[in-house]
Amino acid sequence: MVSIIGASTTKFGELWGTSPRQLAREAVEGALADAGIDQKKVDALFVANMLAGPLAGQQHLGPFFAEELGLHVPAFTIEGACASGGLAVHAAVNAITSGQYEIMVVLGVEKMTDHKPEDVATALMGAGSDEERLSGATFPGLYALLARSHMEKFGTTQEELASIAVKNHFHASLNTNAQFHNTLTVEDVMKSSKVADPITLLECSPISDGAAAVVLTKSRKGVRIVASEVATDTLGLAQRKSLTQLLATQEAASHAYKKAGVGPNDIDVAEVHDCFTIAEILAMEDLGFYKKGKAARAIARGETSLPDSGNPRDSRNRRLVVNPSGGLKGCGHPVAATGIKQMVELVHQLRGTAGKRQVAGARVGLAQNVGGSGATAVVHILKKNYDLRFTN
Amino acid sequence: MVSIIGASTTKFGELWGTSPRQLAREAVEGALADAGIDQKKVDALFVANMLAGPLAGQQHLGPFFAEELGLHVPAFTIEGACASGGLAVHAAVNAITSGQYEIMVVLGVEKMTDHKPEDVATALMGAGSDEERLSGATFPGLYALLARSHMEKFGTTQEELASIAVKNHFHASLNTNAQFHNTLTVEDVMKSSKVADPITLLECSPISDGAAAVVLTKSRKGVRIVASEVATDTLGLAQRKSLTQLLATQEAASHAYKKAGVGPNDIDVAEVHDCFTIAEILAMEDLGFYKKGKAARAIARGETSLPDSGNPRDSRNRRLVVNPSGGLKGCGHPVAATGIKQMVELVHQLRGTAGKRQVAGARVGLAQNVGGSGATAVVHILKKNYDLRFTN
Repeated sequence: MVSIIGASTTKFGELWGTSPRQLAREAVEGALADAGIDQKKVDALFVANMLAGPLAGQQHLGPFFAEELGLHVPAFTIEGACASGGLAVHAAVNAITSGQYEIMVVLGVEKMTDHKPEDVATALMGAGSDEERLSGATFPGLYALLARSHMEKFGTTQEELASIAVKNHFHASLNTNAQFHNTLTVEDVMKSSKVADPITLLECSPISDGAAAVVLTKSRKGVRIVASEVATDTLGLAQRKSLTQLLATQEAASHAYKKAGVGPNDIDVAEVHDCFTIAEILAMEDLGFYKKGKAARAIARGETSLPDSGNPRDSRNRRLVVNPSGGLKGCGHPVAATGIKQMVELVHQLRGTAGKRQVAGARVGLAQNVGGSGATAVVHILKKNYDLRFTN
Repeated sequence: MVSIIGASTTKFGELWGTSPRQLAREAVEGALADAGIDQKKVDALFVANMLAGPLAGQQHLGPFFAEELGLHVPAFTIEGACASGGLAVHAAVNAITSGQYEIMVVLGVEKMTDHKPEDVATALMGAGSDEERLSGATFPGLYALLARSHMEKFGTTQEELASIAVKNHFHASLNTNAQFHNTLTVEDVMKSSKVADPITLLECSPISDGAAAVVLTKSRKGVRIVASEVATDTLGLAQRKSLTQLLATQEAASHAYKKAGVGPNDIDVAEVHDCFTIAEILAMEDLGFYKKGKAARAIARGETSLPDSGNPRDSRNRRLVVNPSGGLKGCGHPVAATGIKQMVELVHQLRGTAGKRQVAGARVGLAQNVGGSGATAVVHILKKNYDLRFTN
């Protein structure tokens, strides 16, 4: 069984003074220090990155970062748009399980704010279908179609959508590494400018810089990865059977629950891919936490918030805590770093070292990382490790 | 043990009328037909590609090609510059050995000739170090430094360098899928215009379109992958200890020989990364086929040529056949497809189905795939499969 024995993330945000190399070094050195592992013991590096090629003309990032990190080891890049981080962990789990490598570092890193926003938007559309990107669609517009469909089919309201941004900003306010520390009200979110009706500015995850890294090995220490599953759907929305669900998430989750021998009710804490508020609603339903059409109200009621969120019904109704890191919305979304950051947050939650964001008694965590508008979904299930000597 | 049970390549060349999707479909359908496997049995797709992001603004190629191919399976991209193909096979071998996937398709695909040559050159330099690419160095220039160093240290001559292009064009003339079918003389190569002294135009691999695919599974049929090893070096030449060797190739080869339980003398046929003629000399030495400084003369003597090459001393001196496909020089170099095409050629050689290019009695093959100027090296060793019932 592969475990995460070290985990670290840089601060996410507009880090104009920090290079990709510096971000990578901070995250990887942090993860190795956390693991108590000398870098000489590392025997492979997988890098998750989407945008260095189109934005900075920089590819071949395996050796690029290996050199910077002083890691003289096999190194290469895994890419699947915003799901690159989760995919790199998946590839690393396979590489360790196969016996090829013993101790691996998986690094997710992205530098977005150095570039013109229109260039970033164009590069990000590399994750969409040709029809979408060449007709000028952008991801806010595509997710707006998903939001509108959900509203029409299930009566989901703008207030409910907004409540997700409110929750995730509250969570981020407790996370020193998050891009945003300001709390929001439903009114703030609804009053912010419309980006693509019904999605408002404060319902969109930001453009961010950041890096995150985990150290993986076969071990009884650390946090166990009990399932790592990937599924794929059509790139474009027009080819999908339904606009109110992401089938790739459903499929990856179904395989992951089976592998892990757990169900949605066993999950204590989840980090999900809330690139837009509607995405968190879809995730809650597609991961099986709520029936279709039921998640939005439940989230608005506080069922997935940390305590002390100001929602009086919180503790009574809490079911599982979702995006304690602040999610993509509050913590930031440096594309390929996101999937690794989700792991870092779950490691802290399952170790009981999440500080103000600690989900009491968390034993099982789930991470859902999405590429594009759902063409890729990666689901990981993580379990607190017990010292086997004292159990059974 | 993972085996290659299906293998196919498109024609390589200037395929202006063919889209990346069409190339991928032809290669994958060919590989599946060769394996006799229904595409419904495939349970993952790994895509090797370097340039679709920077040149075509198209990423997220896992689902992009999965959709085109009707493969509803986990899919993602592996990237490591010109070594992307070899790296994708490496990742797939790990994924199968781990038990995560049973039957995998690995696709390498690249579309280069639709773009302006200067844009292609810039995108390719994404594989170099920042110092190199931002100072305007190009890969012909960098490999020219390697060639000049080798000439100065070992007395390697222009004629010897040219003889590699002659050999590989002769091999390509026997390969219907190759980009070039014209044979060359040493004089032709030496008279062609200097691209970066001492490298002439006819010593450079071309800009190409093409795709290649293999089907992998655990099987006693097919051609066995008995070693799959990756090594990394500094991105930039200035940081290297030596300019007359690629340490990453040496390291990957040393691990691969150990895993496979064979040595250089056991290799009957090799596909190596001759992006420039000097690269094949370095490969011959770094892979252990010849001592340092000894390969160039041996190749010029015909020790690594197919028979009937017009070199009278061929059959007497032949040691192993190198680049029977025509190599990158003669067959073409659609960047990420190259590493997969090497596998396809070795599969045919080890099955005994290589037709006019058949290396008589080939039992063990080696593929060496290089990224950049040697920052990544991937070495695979393949063995002919014996039906175990009839051996021992």
